[in-house]
Amino acid sequence: MASTIDFRPERSQYVYTFGGAEPVMRVKPGTTLSLWSEDAFNHGLRSVTDVASHTLDMRYLNPQTGPFYIEGAESGDTLAVHIVSLTPARSWGVSATIPFFGGMSSTDRTASLQPALPEATWIYEVDAVAQTVGFQARFGNFEVALPLAPMLGTVGVAPAAGEVRTSLVPERFGGNMDTPEMRAGTTAYFAVNVDGAMLSIGDGHYRQGEGEACGTAVEGAMDSVIIVELIKGGGPLWPRLETDDYWMVVGSSRPMEDSWRIAQLEMVRWLSELFDLHEMDAYQLLSQVSEAPIANVVDPNYSVVVKVPKAHFRSGRAYDGIHGDLRARAAALR
Amino acid sequence: MASTIDFRPERSQYVYTFGGAEPVMRVKPGTTLSLWSEDAFNHGLRSVTDVASHTLDMRYLNPQTGPFYIEGAESGDTLAVHIVSLTPARSWGVSATIPFFGGMSSTDRTASLQPALPEATWIYEVDAVAQTVGFQARFGNFEVALPLAPMLGTVGVAPAAGEVRTSLVPERFGGNMDTPEMRAGTTAYFAVNVDGAMLSIGDGHYRQGEGEACGTAVEGAMDSVIIVELIKGGGPLWPRLETDDYWMVVGSSRPMEDSWRIAQLEMVRWLSELFDLHEMDAYQLLSQVSEAPIANVVDPNYSVVVKVPKAHFRSGRAYDGIHGDLRARAAALR
Amino acid sequence: MASTIDFRPERSQYVYTFGGAEPVMRVKPGTTLSLWSEDAFNHGLRSVTDVASHTLDMRYLNPQTGPFYIEGAESGDTLAVHIVSLTPARSWGVSATIPFFGGMSSTDRTASLQPALPEATWIYEVDAVAQTVGFQARFGNFEVALPLAPMLGTVGVAPAAGEVRTSLVPERFGGNMDTPEMRAGTTAYFAVNVDGAMLSIGDGHYRQGEGEACGTAVEGAMDSVIIVELIKGGGPLWPRLETDDYWMVVGSSRPMEDSWRIAQLEMVRWLSELFDLHEMDAYQLLSQVSEAPIANVVDPNYSVVVKVPKAHFRSGRAYDGIHGDLRARAAALR
Amino acid sequence: MASTIDFRPERSQYVYTFGGAEPVMRVKPGTTLSLWSEDAFNHGLRSVTDVASHTLDMRYLNPQTGPFYIEGAESGDTLAVHIVSLTPARSWGVSATIPFFGGMSSTDRTASLQPALPEATWIYEVDAVAQTVGFQARFGNFEVALPLAPMLGTVGVAPAAGEVRTSLVPERFGGNMDTPEMRAGTTAYFAVNVDGAMLSIGDGHYRQGEGEACGTAVEGAMDSVIIVELIKGGGPLWPRLETDDYWMVVGSSRPMEDSWRIAQLEMVRWLSELFDLHEMDAYQLLSQVSEAPIANVVDPNYSVVVKVPKAHFRSGRAYDGIHGDLRARAAALR
Repeated sequence: MASTIDFRPERSQYVYTFGGAEPVMRVKPGTTLSLWSEDAFNHGLRSVTDVASHTLDMRYLNPQTGPFYIEGAESGDTLAVHIVSLTPARSWGVSATIPFFGGMSSTDRTASLQPALPEATWIYEVDAVAQTVGFQARFGNFEVALPLAPMLGTVGVAPAAGEVRTSLVPERFGGNMDTPEMRAGTTAYFAVNVDGAMLSIGDGHYRQGEGEACGTAVEGAMDSVIIVELIKGGGPLWPRLETDDYWMVVGSSRPMEDSWRIAQLEMVRWLSELFDLHEMDAYQLLSQVSEAPIANVVDPNYSVVVKVPKAHFRSGRAYDGIHGDLRARAAALR
Repeated sequence: MASTIDFRPERSQYVYTFGGAEPVMRVKPGTTLSLWSEDAFNHGLRSVTDVASHTLDMRYLNPQTGPFYIEGAESGDTLAVHIVSLTPARSWGVSATIPFFGGMSSTDRTASLQPALPEATWIYEVDAVAQTVGFQARFGNFEVALPLAPMLGTVGVAPAAGEVRTSLVPERFGGNMDTPEMRAGTTAYFAVNVDGAMLSIGDGHYRQGEGEACGTAVEGAMDSVIIVELIKGGGPLWPRLETDDYWMVVGSSRPMEDSWRIAQLEMVRWLSELFDLHEMDAYQLLSQVSEAPIANVVDPNYSVVVKVPKAHFRSGRAYDGIHGDLRARAAALR
Repeated sequence: MASTIDFRPERSQYVYTFGGAEPVMRVKPGTTLSLWSEDAFNHGLRSVTDVASHTLDMRYLNPQTGPFYIEGAESGDTLAVHIVSLTPARSWGVSATIPFFGGMSSTDRTASLQPALPEATWIYEVDAVAQTVGFQARFGNFEVALPLAPMLGTVGVAPAAGEVRTSLVPERFGGNMDTPEMRAGTTAYFAVNVDGAMLSIGDGHYRQGEGEACGTAVEGAMDSVIIVELIKGGGPLWPRLETDDYWMVVGSSRPMEDSWRIAQLEMVRWLSELFDLHEMDAYQLLSQVSEAPIANVVDPNYSVVVKVPKAHFRSGRAYDGIHGDLRARAAALR
Repeated sequence: MASTIDFRPERSQYVYTFGGAEPVMRVKPGTTLSLWSEDAFNHGLRSVTDVASHTLDMRYLNPQTGPFYIEGAESGDTLAVHIVSLTPARSWGVSATIPFFGGMSSTDRTASLQPALPEATWIYEVDAVAQTVGFQARFGNFEVALPLAPMLGTVGVAPAAGEVRTSLVPERFGGNMDTPEMRAGTTAYFAVNVDGAMLSIGDGHYRQGEGEACGTAVEGAMDSVIIVELIKGGGPLWPRLETDDYWMVVGSSRPMEDSWRIAQLEMVRWLSELFDLHEMDAYQLLSQVSEAPIANVVDPNYSVVVKVPKAHFRSGRAYDGIHGDLRARAAALR
């Protein structure tokens, strides 16, 4: 039977990059990891009176738990990461506006001479019974309870070509893709670029809208249970996701149409494989069945998800049905 | 009781622009219009042996039915268009690849020296009982039945500033937004720019994936029943949509992040109005609740939809609840 | 001998679109036109105390002089417009910041929630002897005399496909390209889209930096002398420019890399024609010799110029050497 | 008197990243470095029959000479790199088309389903007397001698935040900016991010057009003489360049308008410093005097240069006139 490893990093063990860090441990394929991760603000925002520009240390955002060296993983392989469960590890989440960050602000890239938007911090209380987080207006009197919808902003491996990227970056290696599709029940597939793959996770979100417009979700420390598996060979060009209902690809680049083009092309190829289709037929079919939600428009790369609903198809098994196996193993864990 | 007008244009009455055309008729607010529209290929692709570059007249694509002069509509007003029903007017739909058009090809804008992709035409038979359209591979042997999901690619009014745009363009005036959200049950709100608003519709899709990747959906002639209403004043900056489940804004520009920024900003403002929120609170709230599907990445402007689920909220009435009224009137028509 | 026509429009004759306007007169190919044009602000900013949001009527910006119906011009032909001379028609020019307009501001497209930049107006006195315009700081004490460098922001013809665009738009038909290359000594080539071509000019700049960063140049009424010629057939896909020193193409789209791609592809094709080169050789050669200044990053489309220096080549005659002929005729006019 | 160090790396010493490499040596500020660098193809293309996809090892492109640890350099400081001379180190340069790379091709980011462009290699013979490189058509019979115009595609320091980037990337740390402005006589200023700054150079170009359209310049091994100086503090946000004639900033991002926005904003700030101007006055002035050539549209980020001609100004001394000092020292070296 596969083992389970619990790991809660010390603050000194937090990692802020993909690539470039020593593994916290070596784990065998098939291992279940029960992990705690700090919130993206590194616990720097704890009340509505905390303000990003005063309280946050911008060098230490998006702390990652990991990296884990997966035994036997070699460049070109496929790492499968199945999310068994995500549980808020605190009774509150937090979101904030940060100067010159976010989708409704000029930034260091989309530069302007305009002043920054006001800074503000919103605390969302978790109601574990109702399974909600509570929005409270900061500039008026309005409250609304929103469904708890835990997800991981960041899951990824070490980049190729010896690169090291901050944990704020979404790229081919995964990273800060900030898509609500990264939730319990999802299997993510990444190409392995270095020996051991070097898997890290973090940036728990108690919920997030598509686009992550203000730049931060309902951020919170997270208890994550994941199963890691290794498939020899077949590393996908860009991260692929699978749920019971969808096959998905996440593209991350700029401008945003390029993120879509990346995900679309990779999905054309995946569909071609799944159903032995000519690329032109896959392109045509995908044109009529794809869903294409935006993931984030705020990170160093913008991320777009291209999804194909499985419901349309009677056949189609990805990676020899490993997602189904992982679902079964996840169910057995509960 | 409100009147119903049936209108099926002669070929000589087809219109290929928003703006610049004489109205086909004047109608009073509250009128139900039962309209037939030709497919986007102008009936130029009727079998898999028809090829776009030989068979299509590129000057006459996306023929519109209209424009309708809405009595009393003046610049600054809001035109509400409720889609009662959309019914395929033929037993088959058609999609095609067109040289240097579509999301997986270089184009006249995203120019390259590469050769065009192969041209091909796919015919989708409508199964009216099963409510499906049938995909058949052109380069192999694969079939799949996809749910019929009729929508209008194009709904819009005359542009501002005396502009005339082809019916291929999505913009502030609506037009070729190519979003699956434009389906039966949706109310669309447009700012009126000229006397009479000059409403046109067309580009029926029997179904379409988000992004409309190859540049064409399952295109087909359509029988549309719509109700037009006029709201004095309050013309929105960009097209707004409302269903029983969502408030939505459609932004159309390039690059695609700008389409999103447009829709996001307009939705911040709409949320502020709906719930009397400060813009910063609306921005924060929207960051956690928005859905953001891509509509098209293939037209002269790319379109992105920003959606807010009504389910989160107990209050919030747009335009004095006109959507509910229109739903009731639509139900009475059946 | 070719005739010269003087024309100074009445205010009621100003035109604010390309396409959609009746010609002010019909002229024969070969005609010299001596034209006066109002400044882009429509004379709405006349002192540093005039402020754009109070003084300008945004419906009436960039007034054009024209359109001129060029006899014999038919769709597919090439209209050659040679600029003989550009002379400031006032003793002062003016520039200004306009809310949510310009390259260092969020705009209606690159939308944000940030407040607008401060509005300000700068008056530049023309020193006709020194041939300079004088910059004076508005928020401090700094003055500098800059060389007078007159150019036309806007030269264009009626669009194809029945479109009508505002005079703020640069596109295939030319229009508001805002490039300093449009100066005395330049021949511009446009494809004719409609009978008579319908040439207009306007938006005189006493000088402009590349990019037109704040959105407005040193704007001023202009006396322009131009010669119009007609070449049957050969209409270029995008506007081409020729001087004694350069062959150039202007591409206008979004994002800006697409403007460049457009101009680059069209220049590959022009080089291929000029020197009977294979496209791959033209692509390679162009990669080593092109100059690529940005024209504007502020208009509805961004414009980029791709230039090839003639000095590298001993041969190469465009359009049967018409530029040389026009230069000679221009010299004879002085 | 300042020392001169000659360094020609062994192949095993080539470095393919900015950041992440051990210094080849420590040098004192003021040192003159005489450096040899391999060409961007790592000497993999030596004749027209060599083809990129067969001959190149894509893991080992753009080899850098360095990094040099500059003694005393600390995060926040300014590293000044003056280019004394650039001399082709071989009698021929080489350019090539590489599958799915370059501005007139779809790429891994601007993805399409189209086939790759033909691969070809062009050899340019250097004529040291005439100071030219010779273009020879590969698909026809055309030759032209182009002026030798040596420049460095790549000059940079280690990135901030512990990142490691491949030597193909242009960014805040400099790197593969691919601008012809990086030539003899230019002083480049970089912010220091890590102790020792970790300066590397490479990617010699015997000449390059603006945009580097096909993705490769006339690539060649280069003998570079540079002087490195350290200015305590004042590290610029983005690389600045200075020549006798211009102040310049290089912005690198995507989409290309963001590269321009970055460079424009940084130049507004530099102008403000140079002439004690309010930002709005600097913005206005820059709008009328800037030149804005594109550097590259082919690298992972696109680079744009914003230039201000010194000729307009009687005053303005950057970094206490260090450029003039370096010019004098460079002259003394000859």
